[in-house]
Amino acid sequence: MTGFSQDHKVSFKSPRSFATVFKSGIKETLFPDDPFYFFKKEPSSLRRAKLAMNYFVPASEWLPKYNSKLFMYDFLAGITIASLAIPQGISYAKLANISPIIGLYSSFVPPLIYAVFGSSKYIAIGTLAASSMLISSTLEEKVSPIDNPDLFLGLVFTATLISGLLQLALGLLRLGILVDFLSHATITGFMGGTATLICLQQLKGIFGLKHFTTHTSIVDVLRAVFSHTDEWRWQSAVVGIIFLAFLLFTRYVKEKRPKLFWVSAIAPMACVIIGCVFAYFAHAEKHGIQIVGELKKGLNPLSFKDLNFDRKYISAPIRAGVITAFIALAEGIAIGRSFAIMNNEQTDGNKEMIAFGLMNIVGSFTSCYLTSGPFSKSAVNYNAGAKTAMTNVVMAVCMLLVLLFLAPVFKYTPLVTLSAIIISAVVGLIDYQKAYHLFKTDKFDFLICMAAFFGVIFISMETGIMISVGIALVRALLYVARPTNCKLGNLSNSMSLYRDVEQYPGATGIPGMLLLQLGSPIYFANSSYLRDRILRYIREEQDISNPEENDIEYVLLDLGGVTSIDTTGVEVLFEIQQNMDAKKIKMILINPRLAVMEKLIPGKFIDKIGKHSVFLSIEDAIEACKYSLKSLKETNGENGA
Amino acid sequence: MTGFSQDHKVSFKSPRSFATVFKSGIKETLFPDDPFYFFKKEPSSLRRAKLAMNYFVPASEWLPKYNSKLFMYDFLAGITIASLAIPQGISYAKLANISPIIGLYSSFVPPLIYAVFGSSKYIAIGTLAASSMLISSTLEEKVSPIDNPDLFLGLVFTATLISGLLQLALGLLRLGILVDFLSHATITGFMGGTATLICLQQLKGIFGLKHFTTHTSIVDVLRAVFSHTDEWRWQSAVVGIIFLAFLLFTRYVKEKRPKLFWVSAIAPMACVIIGCVFAYFAHAEKHGIQIVGELKKGLNPLSFKDLNFDRKYISAPIRAGVITAFIALAEGIAIGRSFAIMNNEQTDGNKEMIAFGLMNIVGSFTSCYLTSGPFSKSAVNYNAGAKTAMTNVVMAVCMLLVLLFLAPVFKYTPLVTLSAIIISAVVGLIDYQKAYHLFKTDKFDFLICMAAFFGVIFISMETGIMISVGIALVRALLYVARPTNCKLGNLSNSMSLYRDVEQYPGATGIPGMLLLQLGSPIYFANSSYLRDRILRYIREEQDISNPEENDIEYVLLDLGGVTSIDTTGVEVLFEIQQNMDAKKIKMILINPRLAVMEKLIPGKFIDKIGKHSVFLSIEDAIEACKYSLKSLKETNGENGA
Repeated sequence: MTGFSQDHKVSFKSPRSFATVFKSGIKETLFPDDPFYFFKKEPSSLRRAKLAMNYFVPASEWLPKYNSKLFMYDFLAGITIASLAIPQGISYAKLANISPIIGLYSSFVPPLIYAVFGSSKYIAIGTLAASSMLISSTLEEKVSPIDNPDLFLGLVFTATLISGLLQLALGLLRLGILVDFLSHATITGFMGGTATLICLQQLKGIFGLKHFTTHTSIVDVLRAVFSHTDEWRWQSAVVGIIFLAFLLFTRYVKEKRPKLFWVSAIAPMACVIIGCVFAYFAHAEKHGIQIVGELKKGLNPLSFKDLNFDRKYISAPIRAGVITAFIALAEGIAIGRSFAIMNNEQTDGNKEMIAFGLMNIVGSFTSCYLTSGPFSKSAVNYNAGAKTAMTNVVMAVCMLLVLLFLAPVFKYTPLVTLSAIIISAVVGLIDYQKAYHLFKTDKFDFLICMAAFFGVIFISMETGIMISVGIALVRALLYVARPTNCKLGNLSNSMSLYRDVEQYPGATGIPGMLLLQLGSPIYFANSSYLRDRILRYIREEQDISNPEENDIEYVLLDLGGVTSIDTTGVEVLFEIQQNMDAKKIKMILINPRLAVMEKLIPGKFIDKIGKHSVFLSIEDAIEACKYSLKSLKETNGENGA
Repeated sequence: MTGFSQDHKVSFKSPRSFATVFKSGIKETLFPDDPFYFFKKEPSSLRRAKLAMNYFVPASEWLPKYNSKLFMYDFLAGITIASLAIPQGISYAKLANISPIIGLYSSFVPPLIYAVFGSSKYIAIGTLAASSMLISSTLEEKVSPIDNPDLFLGLVFTATLISGLLQLALGLLRLGILVDFLSHATITGFMGGTATLICLQQLKGIFGLKHFTTHTSIVDVLRAVFSHTDEWRWQSAVVGIIFLAFLLFTRYVKEKRPKLFWVSAIAPMACVIIGCVFAYFAHAEKHGIQIVGELKKGLNPLSFKDLNFDRKYISAPIRAGVITAFIALAEGIAIGRSFAIMNNEQTDGNKEMIAFGLMNIVGSFTSCYLTSGPFSKSAVNYNAGAKTAMTNVVMAVCMLLVLLFLAPVFKYTPLVTLSAIIISAVVGLIDYQKAYHLFKTDKFDFLICMAAFFGVIFISMETGIMISVGIALVRALLYVARPTNCKLGNLSNSMSLYRDVEQYPGATGIPGMLLLQLGSPIYFANSSYLRDRILRYIREEQDISNPEENDIEYVLLDLGGVTSIDTTGVEVLFEIQQNMDAKKIKMILINPRLAVMEKLIPGKFIDKIGKHSVFLSIEDAIEACKYSLKSLKETNGENGA
């Protein structure tokens, strides 16, 4: 009997120690996925050391088990992504306004680093269109890439180093949480806006313009295109449109027949080769078709001395580095996560950040700029049958051969071919279907997405992303400042189901009582709202109910959904209680959770209302209130008689 | 029968229209207290116009009912607060480094405006020590009050105008929500730090120093005090300590015998009078005791032309105006709310903001600086028996008489007396008991409080408040990024109570099922955390349970506490479902709320898992799962046989 009733009492045990609460808070905040779970289970210290090694250097786990059969798969996939890496490397470097050779360098060193430290089997390392564009547009505010290419390049490396350091720091401090604040809606809008801008910028290449704007806003770009109509070259445009049509056709083939993905994967490389041959034999340059120009043979030179921390310029690489670090992480982690889910594996975002960070830090010392795991390239890698991170090594070896022997060949690549490759690569980023989906399911997410999109195309890439994140944060704060709460009613008299009366209009109230369900933490940002709202519920209820017979005598607060409370919240509970007291209404608490009880007990609120006013379930509370309502009426009746 | 089972089904009705959701969202966000509630109930349009008038000009409601008996109470209270207004006005003006007469002006016009538009009966209008100090310290960065007093004064008026406009705008836009972000912890720390600084600054007055620092940080102030020991005047210090002892004694009397509150209320006025008489007869100035100096007779001059919007200086008054607007609102609204709760009345914070805003706008045109409803003065007003806002009018009339006839008398007020009055007034703001209470109940709130306190005393008032609010916001975001969630267990087999197994260690799991309770909205900032956490729960559970017999087949998610979900959240549900699918685990949703269903239906998630996987109560869900577990085993058994 005692055991039974004990079971149904609210637990009033004294709060856990600060250290316990703090430790569990830190653990939930920074280690929600418990990465050392397997490690802790292992008793042998030798095995533990090995597990730790495997954790920090994933290559140490798969490499010993590696065999020639796996290599065959990885070799084919590696060749495929290398054929994509060459044209994309050259193109995106042009987008970043740096020498195309840097794009090739960037597909050599970083993939090797990732192969050692990265944990995803399918990610293919490479440069990103959006980041290339963002680095360039941010740095151009300080230094012109045309007038001062060396300084500009130095700042690009500096931005890469800053990105890498930031990524490494975020990973080590397990602050992957910050990347969560870039919502899908923000990324969809940002990518769409950036892709639009990039496509427009390619009009320069397509029309063979020599003068162009350094601004990225749509107005400036269109003005630049149409103010130099005299520079338009029809030859260039014809070649560009042919290449573009070819590339888009291969994309279409891939979509219709996913097995033919390799057609679209090698198409850019084919374009580059055809373009080079055509330009070489047709002396294209004389006919208004610009070519890439001299590319030096040889491996990545060291770039320590190019890093530039001059106070005059440093703000630009810092801004570019910070923003691109987040964008690169968001893309790289999202793709890694998608593959993990598809294959029912686990990812640790923070560990991936460390790998990306190391890759960019080493990259910045070896003439590479920002790299990540681009979505398109990684998807090709996966489809081509990649089995381990060895594909990145194969790609790097291909790049090594290109850099040592073939680089000068690409001198003849027509710029218009690169423009066509860029357009066909980024046009898929304009995800209008996703935007429509957002519109259908969540108008606020759609607003966040559109803010990023229009911010990017009309103001600047930085501003666009910041406005969008700002709106998303305001919404996050509104969620906490205006938590949902509702009045509960009984769904059917025979059962003890109490649900939101708005959602289930059949739910009926209990005479003499008002049952409210509160959600979310109660604390400074929402406590005065909750007070106003609760008092308004009482006022409304008093208005409806017959003042003679069924006035409210109990307000029951279901705290089951209240996950925590702070001191302001406790004070507001006191205020509400005082106000109710004046109205002769008793406050009943139902099912307060652990973290809430740990504040209510030292805050003396439980002492104030008494332990008898705290119940474990709605039923118990209503039963007890009904009983005392009845006895109250009987007493009144006796007095009246 | 149909009716019965209908009652227990989850409602799958199609989402409400966007307009409906948007309207109710706006209403909850901006009008949580439903200020026009009484207004809407009224059918007659004439009565409605009158109610609207009463709402916007509260004086129109109480003035017609006003009578001589009420006036007697208000008159006495008004005289009492006027006797407090004179010394405080002079003192705080000195704190703001402006002429003492401005302090007297500020107790004349603003109270009249408040009497018309303000809705609180007990608030007494006056200047605030903390705001005076903050305005001065912010403006001093741009202009010296000693070298250029007229320009400085102009900027003080400009800051006041900006404060007023901001307060008015916040009130009209019903953005009272922003004031909620100044938590009690922040205000406690800020007030304590400011009071400490103000007390230290008074060492200048107490020791009669002539040279002093314009910085507010504790280090600068102490250095200034001790680097000019040659200027110390023992006469001044003796007089100061005597006054201070007297004032603190009257405070002590008030605390011991609350009925004698008037002793401490008139004590500052008594000090000023005694000080004036003493200084006049003893020629105090010749003995090292500085006096206030010339005060002109006459009413507030207009100050339109003093307002200064020069681009060179404007950033300082904007900063000062914005921060003091919030501080003044926080203090004024908090005190109004306290009185309302004590007297079981309702307050509308947004309406009060409009009154404060109008009062400061008009004030800035009539040589007044920032005013609000200071806590101490309002408490005196309440204790002195104030019945309506007429007390403010009585005080204003007293100030009128003082300005017209008595101002020059206060010329002889010794500065040291003012310092003693300031110290005794602000020393009560150092609320170490509250800080200790915060420490006991909530370590994070204590950290927020200490950040404000040390930020204010070691860096600057602005920085202190910003760091503190910043930490509080980070916590608010952490709440949404890391929502609490728990595993539920059955408390006793006979009853259908499912509670947190951590809080109630007696709760037992259900074989083959994992019951999880999620709290808070699910959206971009926390969705990937929730995915990781849910997958970890599954992993941990699979580890514990015997893999042969009782492997998990169902994961039941109790969504009762999930108040909303965004598109990222829905996508993550898909990811979790996909992952579980691979592990052959079925996902069951329990009691999704209205706002959540409205996202899950168009997001096609309900289609994905099927309506049969959504239950209204934990019991129903467990019942159904148990049944299918049983039938599954039977089938297996048959197959095996």
